[in-house]
Amino acid sequence: MTDRLDAQIAFLLEADRLKSVNRATTIADGSRFENSGEHSWHLALFALVLADQAPDGVQVDRVIRMLLLHDLVEIDAGDAPIFDDHDVAALEAAEAKAADRIFALLPPDQATAFRALWDEFEANMTPDAIFAKSLDRFQPPVMNLASGGGSWTDYNVSEDQVRTRVGTKIDHGAPGLWSWLSPRIAAFFAKV
Amino acid sequence: MTDRLDAQIAFLLEADRLKSVNRATTIADGSRFENSGEHSWHLALFALVLADQAPDGVQVDRVIRMLLLHDLVEIDAGDAPIFDDHDVAALEAAEAKAADRIFALLPPDQATAFRALWDEFEANMTPDAIFAKSLDRFQPPVMNLASGGGSWTDYNVSEDQVRTRVGTKIDHGAPGLWSWLSPRIAAFFAKV
Repeated sequence: MTDRLDAQIAFLLEADRLKSVNRATTIADGSRFENSGEHSWHLALFALVLADQAPDGVQVDRVIRMLLLHDLVEIDAGDAPIFDDHDVAALEAAEAKAADRIFALLPPDQATAFRALWDEFEANMTPDAIFAKSLDRFQPPVMNLASGGGSWTDYNVSEDQVRTRVGTKIDHGAPGLWSWLSPRIAAFFAKV
Repeated sequence: MTDRLDAQIAFLLEADRLKSVNRATTIADGSRFENSGEHSWHLALFALVLADQAPDGVQVDRVIRMLLLHDLVEIDAGDAPIFDDHDVAALEAAEAKAADRIFALLPPDQATAFRALWDEFEANMTPDAIFAKSLDRFQPPVMNLASGGGSWTDYNVSEDQVRTRVGTKIDHGAPGLWSWLSPRIAAFFAKV
């Protein structure tokens, strides 16, 4: 049991490094970039608060678990801003390698279970993953609207790009959230 | 439904301010103070990973919900470092007032449910709350050991104070974690 606990604490200390990975979005007041640790908390809170936006069959507590783990790979692979250009295959390979290393710090049964949950999130095929992914796409626009532009301004993003790269995924997993967000995005881009 | 969503988003944006509340502990590498937003994520991850340390009957997903919410009152009341001197009655009053304001931003049904979960955490009487509280006492020593002293050094804390103010609560809710931590605390204080 001590070996097991040693491994669990080693994983939790490694996870701490996610607090030092900065994202492209800022906190709501625009004063600094958000880090991926606090983002993961905020997103889990989004899932808890917006649970009534989830389609029937979604298990919100499972979505929360998924969101607590979803960004850990960024400890090695970094955050890939959605409006930046990426070599998608290279990024996916880097994230998979990161998942191999980081989840393997855990005792084998947990390593397998957590890795499966992360793989499910990434594959974005199950109802839980689709809802989790839609929240991960919904939170940054909410932050950008609050801060007055954020990553949209920094990356010189058009309304069309927001609708294509972000809107479609939100609408797929949480259409009620997209109905709320869509006119606010239109109003924002009408003014810039 | 739009009014409901407006209220939920207003709450989530207010919650964002927890990312700007600094704690007395640092992140594991000691480079900066930890904020209460990322702390809440880390703690929820502790609950997920250390679930097998919970006594029978503890519902870990409920503990995670509790931990996601537990520090929101600090937006108004600030973080009260455990080794600092406090007017306990004044602090509890400030936190209750903060809870009144912050949870009331939510739709009434959620305001009631979330407030009840926070009250349960604070009262520290149910199995879920006792386990949640023990994790909240366990994470800072883990961080202090990693950073080489942290708040113990800053507040000139003795081993006895750690055992009294922190150890008893950890031992109460998660004796296995205290068995792991106790000799490590002894080894740390033997060296300083």
